[in-house]
Amino acid sequence: MRTVAGVLEAALSSLFNEAVKISGAGRTDTGVHATGQVVSFSTRARFPFERLIVALNSALPGDLSVRDYAIVDSEFSARFSARERTYVYAILNRPAPSAILARYAYHVWSPLDVTPMLRGADSLLGERDFRSFCGTLPEGGITVRTVRRLEIVQRGDLLRIDIAADGFLHRMVRTIVGTLVECGTGKRDPATIPSVIEARDRASAGHTAPAHGLFLAGVRYVDGYDSFSDPRF
Amino acid sequence: MRTVAGVLEAALSSLFNEAVKISGAGRTDTGVHATGQVVSFSTRARFPFERLIVALNSALPGDLSVRDYAIVDSEFSARFSARERTYVYAILNRPAPSAILARYAYHVWSPLDVTPMLRGADSLLGERDFRSFCGTLPEGGITVRTVRRLEIVQRGDLLRIDIAADGFLHRMVRTIVGTLVECGTGKRDPATIPSVIEARDRASAGHTAPAHGLFLAGVRYVDGYDSFSDPRF
Repeated sequence: MRTVAGVLEAALSSLFNEAVKISGAGRTDTGVHATGQVVSFSTRARFPFERLIVALNSALPGDLSVRDYAIVDSEFSARFSARERTYVYAILNRPAPSAILARYAYHVWSPLDVTPMLRGADSLLGERDFRSFCGTLPEGGITVRTVRRLEIVQRGDLLRIDIAADGFLHRMVRTIVGTLVECGTGKRDPATIPSVIEARDRASAGHTAPAHGLFLAGVRYVDGYDSFSDPRF
Repeated sequence: MRTVAGVLEAALSSLFNEAVKISGAGRTDTGVHATGQVVSFSTRARFPFERLIVALNSALPGDLSVRDYAIVDSEFSARFSARERTYVYAILNRPAPSAILARYAYHVWSPLDVTPMLRGADSLLGERDFRSFCGTLPEGGITVRTVRRLEIVQRGDLLRIDIAADGFLHRMVRTIVGTLVECGTGKRDPATIPSVIEARDRASAGHTAPAHGLFLAGVRYVDGYDSFSDPRF
């Protein structure tokens, strides 16, 4: 199977003429997009790094591009040094689908009322046990995360949900989005979200929204560096 | 070759159980997108038209969708009743390409200065002979068109050009964009645009910007109906 990591490692290995293994900051399942992904790797290769971006993008296919680079301490890990990740989820809310957004937004036919979605979102802010919103449990089984920001903005027939947290569980954003969409269509009462959290049971939360509406938009590090790049919905 | 018109005609013919031939309002060459295309057709089929949009979108592939329909006078032609068309052209202006915009924006590496681009655009407003900006000459050879609006807006690393006219020649928008980009990079002096128009020679204008940055955004009709749908860049 072709993966972002595999394609990038192949390009880097070919440029540096040695095997390169990358570590990525955020999970991107099949179909998930990223505008602010960060990866780190070690190399002993001597390379004119000021030419890295141009050389790398020339070697990469059109659906994968690299925006910037930095030389960092050897202790730095794109994954483990991250302090906050921001995901953006795009929903197209109208009867007709969009050919252009087909791969980039979740098409919801039924009209969404944002007010109950915002009420549901309020209950998900802060430090919570998100086990009910978790697909595969993480190693160690700790499912407590801190959601620092959860915003829903409607602009015409587009709805955008921004979620920032110290970390995310498997499918957590997509399950939060699916649950909030159910609040927006009237299928679910937002007042029940606290009991969904308490249940610690995936079955109590809503459906998993599709992968193709999700963007890893940015990763913030301990030194303040933030890779955030707006998906512009 | 698979075309938008062919795919749409096949879906309509299958729904109506008779051969359907459509007439489209605006040219969309291979790679060009449309958010506001209008097509018209005649049919004698009896069909529950209030279900047309849902039935049609179910029959269409994900990269083609239909937003709305209206039953019109038999004299109406999507092509010949149109009074104004609006195209939007998207440019990504930064060193690194974008995987997400790769199919939707022209990637220009060199920094663009908008001021000379706006000066060049001024010379293209109004009734002009656009022969220098024309690919294949139209039947009849009339190359005079009236550009009613030509706006350039920069937002971060995205540049958006909106052009509205009573009609467009083959590749006219893309050649105008290519010429304005050359003004923006300093390769071409915007003060020379009037002489480019006077030359009536394609070789005097700039390069043809790629098809994939171009969107047919809307068509306005004699009765005031306007299909405009913003490509949101």
